[in-house]
Amino acid sequence: MPKSDFSFFHPLRVRWAEVDLQKVVFNAHYLMYFDIAFTEYWRACGLPDALTQHQQGKELFVKRAILEYHSPALYDDALNIGVRCSRLGNSSMTLLFEIYRAQECLVSGELLYVYADPIAKKGVPIPEEWRKRLKEVERLTLDSCQ
Amino acid sequence: MPKSDFSFFHPLRVRWAEVDLQKVVFNAHYLMYFDIAFTEYWRACGLPDALTQHQQGKELFVKRAILEYHSPALYDDALNIGVRCSRLGNSSMTLLFEIYRAQECLVSGELLYVYADPIAKKGVPIPEEWRKRLKEVERLTLDSCQ
Amino acid sequence: MPKSDFSFFHPLRVRWAEVDLQKVVFNAHYLMYFDIAFTEYWRACGLPDALTQHQQGKELFVKRAILEYHSPALYDDALNIGVRCSRLGNSSMTLLFEIYRAQECLVSGELLYVYADPIAKKGVPIPEEWRKRLKEVERLTLDSCQ
Amino acid sequence: MPKSDFSFFHPLRVRWAEVDLQKVVFNAHYLMYFDIAFTEYWRACGLPDALTQHQQGKELFVKRAILEYHSPALYDDALNIGVRCSRLGNSSMTLLFEIYRAQECLVSGELLYVYADPIAKKGVPIPEEWRKRLKEVERLTLDSCQ
Repeated sequence: MPKSDFSFFHPLRVRWAEVDLQKVVFNAHYLMYFDIAFTEYWRACGLPDALTQHQQGKELFVKRAILEYHSPALYDDALNIGVRCSRLGNSSMTLLFEIYRAQECLVSGELLYVYADPIAKKGVPIPEEWRKRLKEVERLTLDSCQ
Repeated sequence: MPKSDFSFFHPLRVRWAEVDLQKVVFNAHYLMYFDIAFTEYWRACGLPDALTQHQQGKELFVKRAILEYHSPALYDDALNIGVRCSRLGNSSMTLLFEIYRAQECLVSGELLYVYADPIAKKGVPIPEEWRKRLKEVERLTLDSCQ
Repeated sequence: MPKSDFSFFHPLRVRWAEVDLQKVVFNAHYLMYFDIAFTEYWRACGLPDALTQHQQGKELFVKRAILEYHSPALYDDALNIGVRCSRLGNSSMTLLFEIYRAQECLVSGELLYVYADPIAKKGVPIPEEWRKRLKEVERLTLDSCQ
Repeated sequence: MPKSDFSFFHPLRVRWAEVDLQKVVFNAHYLMYFDIAFTEYWRACGLPDALTQHQQGKELFVKRAILEYHSPALYDDALNIGVRCSRLGNSSMTLLFEIYRAQECLVSGELLYVYADPIAKKGVPIPEEWRKRLKEVERLTLDSCQ
């Protein structure tokens, strides 16, 4: 995916504690980076954060994660994480992520989120105002089942 | 995959620091759990650990990770992580993981590892003795391109 | 403190993700190790865990932590963490910790815990049954203000 | 210590993965926050970073850490971490830290660092240029044994 397809990037500096003996960021931490970038994307969209969702009793949960590791991030690297909502289903949505150091894409991935009631343990419809907002934010065509 | 298809399990207790506000294990930590279980699987196979590999100049790197989240692990859960090598390529191999609480599979996933020279940044053949050992360990048929 | 002064030890294997570029456990992780060992000490004492406390509305919070780093723990080290309650106040208590690799003490420390109501943000008396149980568990004289 | 005694602050946003079931930042993570803020303080001073030190064979190690927890940091809090070098010894130095949310000091602490040769496992003199630079940076009187 061209870098220009992302309308949102979040900058992030690699921490000492995130780098392992191989002198690279430990592989699981990129998934945390996705989470951090998603939080900021969501904030930039003006949508309710995870704590607010938790208090309201309906929350986004990650259902599937895919990560492709192209090249490692190193200690103190200044990264930029592109986030893009690529698909909006009834109760699920797909987010694409790419982690860049300058123009080089180091890690790409996608997360499938489900909006669910954690007590009933079942998906609930994504609110219409979220849907509207996400369509405004994404400059590209958003796949949608509705 | 039936639980019985795994010849190796590693027990793991969920730590307080790994559980988030949603009262569940944070999604990135399962990828760390896979890493821990892989280390113990590798040890049980009698193969050289990551530090030894690092010192020898050829190391296993994760190239792709896929995680499927079925149900969350909770604080203090006693988990069992099944690990199985399902494919052996020339310089890559696929490992399957399933995280269980009793008989319930909470998270499943697969990691594609590449055995590589980090200086030259290219794959190198998986040693014949590793190959032999992994074939002995896995009771099931192991897909192999050789 | 002699190793024999501890009546409780918790074993712990150093994880790959916990070791940094200096090839040693990152300094903050020892404080997490203390927390893990305290959880197991508390369980061995038969006292209510952090989640139960949270649900009951009164919880132990760390008020002060001191760590002394003598020698680093390394990747894959098999550690033993000694835990001992050394002082019982009205609403606070002091726990001593020592992290061993074989007979060598690598890190020692103490945590001051306060038992508090997080809504009212003030200390509450440690329950009499906890007090009784901790006195039984500790073979050594326990300093106590009561 | 008055907030004005710090000449350096590093901003930091609390991450979802750093908050636990008690809805507060897990106690060990503040020590990681100190480390992150120290890295940025050191960078602002123009002194060689941990990786450069590691490659040069002499490194700063934490010898003692003290943390005082006054009030918890919460999810998504925008924190400011004050860092100040308060003492310069021959091969050791003391750094003071205070973590603020607006004008409220949530956590304070101090770290004793030793500059050491990790092979010989003994302290080595802090370079004169580091000493000179730290004295320039700190507006307040710096305790020094030299």
